[in-house]
Amino acid sequence: MDTATTPQGAMGATAEAQTAYAEIRKSLRDASILSTVGTLLSWDQEVLMPADAGAFRAEQLAAMSKLSHQRRTDPRLGERIALCETDSALTSDAQEGANLREIRREFDRATKLPSDLVVALAQTSSLAMEAWKEARARSDFALFEPHLTRIIELSKEQAHCWGAPEDGELYDALLDEYEPGARCADVERMFTPLRERLAPFISEVASAPRSPSEAIDKIRAPIDAQKAFCHFISEAVGYDFSAGRLDVSTHPFTESMGPRDVRITTRYSEAHFADASLTTLHEVGHAMYEQGLPTQDRFGEPIGTYASLGAHESQSRLWENQIGRSLAFWTWALPASRKFFGGALAGLSPQQAFEGVNRVRPHFIRVESDEATYHLHIMLRFDLERALIRGELNVADIPGAWNERMKRDLGLVVPDDRLGCLQDIHWSMGAVGYFPTYTIGSLLACQLWEALVRDIPDARTLVEKGEFAPLLAWTRTNVHTHGRRYRTDELCERATGAPLSHEPLMRHLRSKLGPIYGLS
Amino acid sequence: MDTATTPQGAMGATAEAQTAYAEIRKSLRDASILSTVGTLLSWDQEVLMPADAGAFRAEQLAAMSKLSHQRRTDPRLGERIALCETDSALTSDAQEGANLREIRREFDRATKLPSDLVVALAQTSSLAMEAWKEARARSDFALFEPHLTRIIELSKEQAHCWGAPEDGELYDALLDEYEPGARCADVERMFTPLRERLAPFISEVASAPRSPSEAIDKIRAPIDAQKAFCHFISEAVGYDFSAGRLDVSTHPFTESMGPRDVRITTRYSEAHFADASLTTLHEVGHAMYEQGLPTQDRFGEPIGTYASLGAHESQSRLWENQIGRSLAFWTWALPASRKFFGGALAGLSPQQAFEGVNRVRPHFIRVESDEATYHLHIMLRFDLERALIRGELNVADIPGAWNERMKRDLGLVVPDDRLGCLQDIHWSMGAVGYFPTYTIGSLLACQLWEALVRDIPDARTLVEKGEFAPLLAWTRTNVHTHGRRYRTDELCERATGAPLSHEPLMRHLRSKLGPIYGLS
Repeated sequence: MDTATTPQGAMGATAEAQTAYAEIRKSLRDASILSTVGTLLSWDQEVLMPADAGAFRAEQLAAMSKLSHQRRTDPRLGERIALCETDSALTSDAQEGANLREIRREFDRATKLPSDLVVALAQTSSLAMEAWKEARARSDFALFEPHLTRIIELSKEQAHCWGAPEDGELYDALLDEYEPGARCADVERMFTPLRERLAPFISEVASAPRSPSEAIDKIRAPIDAQKAFCHFISEAVGYDFSAGRLDVSTHPFTESMGPRDVRITTRYSEAHFADASLTTLHEVGHAMYEQGLPTQDRFGEPIGTYASLGAHESQSRLWENQIGRSLAFWTWALPASRKFFGGALAGLSPQQAFEGVNRVRPHFIRVESDEATYHLHIMLRFDLERALIRGELNVADIPGAWNERMKRDLGLVVPDDRLGCLQDIHWSMGAVGYFPTYTIGSLLACQLWEALVRDIPDARTLVEKGEFAPLLAWTRTNVHTHGRRYRTDELCERATGAPLSHEPLMRHLRSKLGPIYGLS
Repeated sequence: MDTATTPQGAMGATAEAQTAYAEIRKSLRDASILSTVGTLLSWDQEVLMPADAGAFRAEQLAAMSKLSHQRRTDPRLGERIALCETDSALTSDAQEGANLREIRREFDRATKLPSDLVVALAQTSSLAMEAWKEARARSDFALFEPHLTRIIELSKEQAHCWGAPEDGELYDALLDEYEPGARCADVERMFTPLRERLAPFISEVASAPRSPSEAIDKIRAPIDAQKAFCHFISEAVGYDFSAGRLDVSTHPFTESMGPRDVRITTRYSEAHFADASLTTLHEVGHAMYEQGLPTQDRFGEPIGTYASLGAHESQSRLWENQIGRSLAFWTWALPASRKFFGGALAGLSPQQAFEGVNRVRPHFIRVESDEATYHLHIMLRFDLERALIRGELNVADIPGAWNERMKRDLGLVVPDDRLGCLQDIHWSMGAVGYFPTYTIGSLLACQLWEALVRDIPDARTLVEKGEFAPLLAWTRTNVHTHGRRYRTDELCERATGAPLSHEPLMRHLRSKLGPIYGLS
């Protein structure tokens, strides 16, 4: 935690550059102290805050956001970055050079936004979130529409400030916020063949000769037992509760409000105990990434943060899908669950649980979708967002456009906006350009898992025995400890030996779902 | 919430003064936005924060405290205050004049402390609190002694900066922080006759012919049922959950993190369901005061805050003692409790509950003491604190002085410092001068209750019926809506028609405890 200590890779720099670098690191840490206070304000708003506190909370969030933005855009910070960039010992160091590159990127992005816009975004999204909650509860898009219109306006303004890359479009500027260096066109190049492979696969499954067991649907599990079970599996896979918490929220999420304060939320329903378990594993995957980052003395610096949201999602999906949706996992988890549920899960075998959590069924709700149809939801959102930013779609027309795509892509007639365009929190938060990272993360998870199994051939046996430590250690070594040293594509190549591809996902789906559905 | 709107009482001021006044109000609101963020950080630390997050949380708290202090000591704020003070329309207005007087007081107190001293106090108390925790756990005063010595030195320095009033002593400067305008000599004038009346009364009770029922000691009530019951009574008396929460913490407290976000905590034990109920009522009393303050458009200004800690304590004690410890309350609460506890409280009658929560028993621990002996604990602390600040007592001699007083005043031989001078957190926090406000609040509660019963003669019947709204409305009108317009003594006179006195407390004790103990 001592930013005054010069990191190894900066030792060769001039005294002047070392001083400037130390000052940069201290400024970033100070800015992060303020940002993480904002994170707590948001977390509290989602998890605990009383109903009437929303308006004032928006002011608190805006104040924090303004303060942290001021620090991140301090001209002295810019001068020090420029000074460090002239020091070849620093820029050529693999670790510190990457850190400096990302510090520059963040400084440029931050200074391009006028502080009025930052405050407007914070305040608008805080109010929009409250409006979205009500709109969703009442399934009344009209309540949310003016807020979303403002969010889209501000997002465009934001994108214009950041500027579209020369080889790209305006939406890229937003996407880059979540997936540094990614371009719309690249996403499209990845999504197009994925869609071409997924669509026939989903049809094949729909007319498959065998149906998976539905035994899991008969289970009713008390919420308190589920809470204890989710706590148990979280701890078992390696989530550190001395630096975290597990709470309940409408929309499960993970947030870090400090290097040793990484909190997750989940949700429970009596009829869907496995959903709660898998959602928890998903968030635990995110949280273990955060807990595994090199924050000890690098908190607040790029090198101490996650590579991208795609990389983040790869960690959550790996624990949710590669592990949590495996037969091996339920072979371990079901017997272990008995002390929490008593006889409530007695009628369920590991094979039945495994089949139950792997059913492919088009669903209105993205987060309740299976591993195959899920990506069609993402592509829908990506296309609509892009059209909104391009000005080819008006906010008022979202419900119509949404429902049309759901019909075409998934064959579903959306009955109301609660099950349609009001289901996700993202837009209310001002997070436009975020959705593609979910699919990028899923693809990466599949590819990382193939690499992990090459390195640890008995991985499945370890899961069956509930010995997760070697698997977590592999992700620590290959993903977590690098922080933001590598861009996601390079991280992928280094960890798996190949560029990111949709092939591992398709192999994963076919090898897992083939036997369940009796596919040839 | 619009500080740009000129309040009625400032309408006659010059345009220049109106502008300055609006700017002052905006600065104070901004400073409060930052202070309340700090409040959330503290609340979270007490209630939820993971174990390993403490070190970083201290940095977050320090950052917020520095930011809000900067705003409160901004020289431009001082210039604007001076300008407004030259405007007789403002200074002569009953409401705005009082607001301005308190704004001046707070600005002067904040700017009189050199920032070195502020930092030294923050650092010392942070270390002192850790040392106190350990010293208390090990019951080893020597571990705490050097820290407390430093705290007392710094408190004296602080008092010197603030300055003793011409008609008073150094300790007054500290007391004034918690009880604006109060003087040591006044406190002594109130405490001396109270002690003279309490001592024989406690002896009389000790040798009373009748003993109160102990039936309540046999009750074991499940924690979950207690939680639901405490939620129920909180809501029933008028605590607004849409602007609040009820959680659990080791030391129960109330905190406002916004005008519509006033949270309380309590604690539960299976064997002491009534303690949890009364502790909750105590915190609810504090919280309803906060919820009743005129914060709508005056948040952050003195006029929108509580009058003093004594006034605050009067509101908690009124609901805890005047109402919660009455027979009328248990006549209502016990039947109402059935749907939460099932048969768990079946063996208990209202009379038995009433007697159980009103037993007078000298106790080592202040916060576990009854309404009569409690004040001897306060007087002990007041006398020791004053002697420390006067230099008549050395820190090293505290345990001896403490134990001697406990023997003399309460007839108790303190077995170790954990049950003696290490029991309270206040000194470790640097809060010297705080204790007297507890007794001031209790006296005021009794006096307010007598006035309330004069105005609402059927108050007890209303309590029996669970109709608390008229009682809360009375406190709203007579206490809450005034904010800090009046000093506590004036507030008391206006609400009760008489200066604050120990007589109502003595009448309250005798009329309630007389029959229970069979006193003549």
